[in-house]
Amino acid sequence: MASYLITGASRGFGLALARQLASLPASDVSKVFATARGDTPALEELAKKSPGRVVVVKLDVTNEASIKQAAAEVETNLEGKGLDVLINNAGVCQYASDGVKSMDNLAESFTINVLGVHWVIRTFLPLLQKGTQKKVANISTTLGSITLSRSAHYLPAPAYKISKAAMNSLTVQYGIDCEKESFTFMALCPGWMKTDLGGGEMADLTAEEGAKASLDMIFKPGQELNGQFPKILVQGWEKAEGNNQYDGSNSAW
Amino acid sequence: MASYLITGASRGFGLALARQLASLPASDVSKVFATARGDTPALEELAKKSPGRVVVVKLDVTNEASIKQAAAEVETNLEGKGLDVLINNAGVCQYASDGVKSMDNLAESFTINVLGVHWVIRTFLPLLQKGTQKKVANISTTLGSITLSRSAHYLPAPAYKISKAAMNSLTVQYGIDCEKESFTFMALCPGWMKTDLGGGEMADLTAEEGAKASLDMIFKPGQELNGQFPKILVQGWEKAEGNNQYDGSNSAW
Ligand SMILES: NC(=O)c1ccc[n+]([C@@H]2O[C@H](COP(=O)([O-])OP(=O)(O)OC[C@H]3O[C@@H](n4cnc5c(N)ncnc54)[C@H](OP(=O)(O)O)[C@@H]3O)[C@@H](O)[C@H]2O)c1
Ligand SMILES: NC(=O)c1ccc[n+]([C@@H]2O[C@H](COP(=O)([O-])OP(=O)(O)OC[C@H]3O[C@@H](n4cnc5c(N)ncnc54)[C@H](OP(=O)(O)O)[C@@H]3O)[C@@H](O)[C@H]2O)c1
Repeated sequence: MASYLITGASRGFGLALARQLASLPASDVSKVFATARGDTPALEELAKKSPGRVVVVKLDVTNEASIKQAAAEVETNLEGKGLDVLINNAGVCQYASDGVKSMDNLAESFTINVLGVHWVIRTFLPLLQKGTQKKVANISTTLGSITLSRSAHYLPAPAYKISKAAMNSLTVQYGIDCEKESFTFMALCPGWMKTDLGGGEMADLTAEEGAKASLDMIFKPGQELNGQFPKILVQGWEKAEGNNQYDGSNSAW
Repeated sequence: MASYLITGASRGFGLALARQLASLPASDVSKVFATARGDTPALEELAKKSPGRVVVVKLDVTNEASIKQAAAEVETNLEGKGLDVLINNAGVCQYASDGVKSMDNLAESFTINVLGVHWVIRTFLPLLQKGTQKKVANISTTLGSITLSRSAHYLPAPAYKISKAAMNSLTVQYGIDCEKESFTFMALCPGWMKTDLGGGEMADLTAEEGAKASLDMIFKPGQELNGQFPKILVQGWEKAEGNNQYDGSNSAW
């Protein structure tokens, strides 16, 4: 029985994670705090279907006051219990059409994809410390791997790649700092999915497939994934070419 | 015969680089643009000793107008020639005394150590494209290596580590984008030096030793170091323990 909080649950992968968690028995998943910065009919509908178990909370990861307000609401709702698992999913993928020299959105990408993650973690840390799982999954991507940069050159999204590399470093800093408190911080790669950010029908996986395989990684017991950069494991895709291999191994940084 | 521009040349490693370059024959080093954000007696003195060859230019890497103004001055001074080598050295190392959860300077570190480097590169790119060497050395550190994070845990400077990891990713983005134009972009690790940032007498190398060994790497002909993360080579230190080995090899990202 564990409680989960997801940022950016309005659509795409975050919404799929919320739906997937809500579909599991209450004996496994006691609460899903599905957070979004705006009003979201899809989430309200999900909450209606799982009254008391799926809780919709307003949270804009770039606004510290909004994060603190959300943490206060979650704390009240948990009635003295801790938060078990935090999934930092909210993110943007920004492009620079004429290559890195034309990049003018690095500060914005950094604020959402790195500072936002840092602010959410540090605000929820006291609640997570009271939790039983002490797990934080920061949603990353093999596009953030510096080692694999060359094979990702086709995608003109330098601000995305650079900010995710920074988020990976942030994840490892938290992982090493907090491991003695039994925390697990992972930079989890959910695979290339058919979402607004990921790509339409060309992408490999549905958001549901990515969510299911990502939760398998998050559910893994123990701290083995602390400070790691795991890819999901999907049957039939283990041996795909290039960066898009879903074999459950850790990516190179 | 090549021209060089160094950011953050007011003190420490940047000043040592300017002095070292000024000490080389004019047949090797035609011009040193030693840039600093403030007035710097040490630089003025160096410029007096090498009139016309060492040129002091005002440049604050966090201020795009100041970077553009500096580029205009440098362009005028070069009288139609290009700039050959750019050394992005300006940087800060900020601490978080109670670990990453207490970090409140990540945005500032990021602005100076990452955005500043990006802004300087893109502003000087047209001048570099006219140069003969097309070399850019972004001064990095093994503390920015995500792979080596565990062995760097003793130093509570998460904003420094995260921002340098992001600068490394930025460096590789430029390297891959610009290599067909014969550019070399490297993330160069100058070693642990006795500067205000690095540490007093405890550090391994003087700024002069670090500067000499760093220039050896920058002088290497060809594009072999493009998109790489080289450490300096210093005789007697090749086999030192841990991250501080100065064996000229590339660090893990
Ligand atoms: N799709 C892929 O192929 C893929 C692959 C690897 C990693 N990922 C990662 O997976 C995560 C989700 O991606 P996705 O494909 O689901 O993208 P998406 O469909 O574009 O959804 C992005 C989500 O982030 C939210 N968000 C953006 N800025 C926010 C802010 N300031 N505060 C709160 N929420 C914010 C969005 O909310 P709004 O609806 O309010 O805009 C939305 O819920 C991202 O971190 C992405 O990097 C995706
Ligand atoms: N020392 C080491 O052991 C070591 C090891 C690895 C890498 N490094 C790297 O080497 C570089 C230089 O370090 P250092 O040891 O020489 O440090 P330092 O002695 O503290 O000097 C830092 C330099 O950066 C300049 N600077 C800071 N913010 C600036 C801005 N906004 N615009 C322009 N200049 C700015 C400073 O100028 P002001 O005088 O105006 O403040 C100064 O010239 C850094 O990038 C550092 O990360 C150092």
